[in-house]
Amino acid sequence: MKLYTIEHNHKELVAIQGNDNHLYSLSSLGLVVTDMNELILNWESLAPHITTKLASASVPPIDHYRILAPITTPLQDVVCLGVNYHNHIAETADVIDFTKQADTVYFSKRVNRCNNPDGAIPHYNFVDKLDYEVELGIVLKKDAFQVSVENAADYILGYTIINDASARDIQLKHQQWYLGKSLDGYTPMGPCIVTADEIVDPHNLTIQCYVNNELRQDSNTKYMITSVEEAIAELSQGMTLKAGTVIASGTPGGVGMGMKPPVFLQSGDVVRCEIEQIGTLCNTVA
Amino acid sequence: MKLYTIEHNHKELVAIQGNDNHLYSLSSLGLVVTDMNELILNWESLAPHITTKLASASVPPIDHYRILAPITTPLQDVVCLGVNYHNHIAETADVIDFTKQADTVYFSKRVNRCNNPDGAIPHYNFVDKLDYEVELGIVLKKDAFQVSVENAADYILGYTIINDASARDIQLKHQQWYLGKSLDGYTPMGPCIVTADEIVDPHNLTIQCYVNNELRQDSNTKYMITSVEEAIAELSQGMTLKAGTVIASGTPGGVGMGMKPPVFLQSGDVVRCEIEQIGTLCNTVA
Repeated sequence: MKLYTIEHNHKELVAIQGNDNHLYSLSSLGLVVTDMNELILNWESLAPHITTKLASASVPPIDHYRILAPITTPLQDVVCLGVNYHNHIAETADVIDFTKQADTVYFSKRVNRCNNPDGAIPHYNFVDKLDYEVELGIVLKKDAFQVSVENAADYILGYTIINDASARDIQLKHQQWYLGKSLDGYTPMGPCIVTADEIVDPHNLTIQCYVNNELRQDSNTKYMITSVEEAIAELSQGMTLKAGTVIASGTPGGVGMGMKPPVFLQSGDVVRCEIEQIGTLCNTVA
Repeated sequence: MKLYTIEHNHKELVAIQGNDNHLYSLSSLGLVVTDMNELILNWESLAPHITTKLASASVPPIDHYRILAPITTPLQDVVCLGVNYHNHIAETADVIDFTKQADTVYFSKRVNRCNNPDGAIPHYNFVDKLDYEVELGIVLKKDAFQVSVENAADYILGYTIINDASARDIQLKHQQWYLGKSLDGYTPMGPCIVTADEIVDPHNLTIQCYVNNELRQDSNTKYMITSVEEAIAELSQGMTLKAGTVIASGTPGGVGMGMKPPVFLQSGDVVRCEIEQIGTLCNTVA
């Protein structure tokens, strides 16, 4: 399934893509959920009905809508993996020495509201070094505590795209990355959540980012150092990952900070993030 | 006002301390809120009624209750200041070099559920270096965005005590501190929120931590490097601090990691955190 949150007649609706590629609101199928979080928290009971109702219902698809971030307001801060692709470690070596870093880097990103797949990324006047990071996002469907690598996939609802926009100057001057990653508007997400059953191998997806149509990041999720399942297992060893948790699994090489010399985003730049089988985010810097 | 969350007859209730030092549930005063977060989000409209009703009502105080964390489930991850007292910088110099760190360190702590003022702190078998950190906690009552230092106090509902329990081995091996700070049970909070009007100067409070009755941390909030108001101003420059946000303002010297040689918490240790005018947390390591 491809799950969307859309704005239609000034209302936010949860919708699903039908086999005809049109979107159908869950409410038109007789399934009432207030938002994607409610759907996620009730996934096990609701999911079987969605496909059944979609197959049997004769309702019209939604038209005249805008696609929003599939989870407009994550229930908790987004959990992020840092430097999880080898070529991203290499390119950032001038700024951060990860050559001795054997363990996965975990941090978080406050997301008061996810930016939309076509939303403007704010360019704050106190940020000189705005950068992009295309990442595979993982959405969990049930509470995970002390989950093994082997069982971790059972906790995954599906996958989305996240642009982990980062103010490099803020990120680095405060030593911990949290604030430079957490500015309002810095988390474009979407365009949808593709449920895990439709992604045969989340570790074999082309992942790319273009800036003004120039290909900057061009990799494959198979080059992740810590896999999605390993991350869920390690994170959940002592910290319950509650249903609705969003994990951003790190970005491949090609960010602006890694260019020689570094090139940062400017107002008007168009950042296009693409992951195979999921779709595209296209955000303009305000 | 001193605001509490208590367990009474298997229910969680929000309560206020009367002038007689007894606790009165808000519901007995005719004010129905489901939890402390709802009270915070409606603070401006509800607060005037609380004192009026408390003065006029002739209801009995609550008895036979257990004091829980005042905010059992923070709406978002707790925002933390790192190394915000000079003597804590000095004692951690062997492990982390902050001598060149001119800017405030901000990170976050996932708190699925706050630990209670008398709750057991879990001792995970994969953690060798469990440590304590008494901190002044700040609770915000309204959304703060681009707030000046001068206006920051207007956004503060009140103050509480937080023990920012930390698995030093996990905290440091992952480079970013998030995971080692975010294990379940690692955020004892309480015993209450003291509203800002009752604390004449949040930067002149004795702050102490005892382990097994041995005084380990003994300082005053006047030794904070970045003040509460400065932190709110800097954090809110680009990141909206929403109502209900909890900020932990850093810990003074005297943590176990800073002892020569370092001494970490063991099962059975009793950690008692005290801040003047707020109260005491007393947590035993499981």
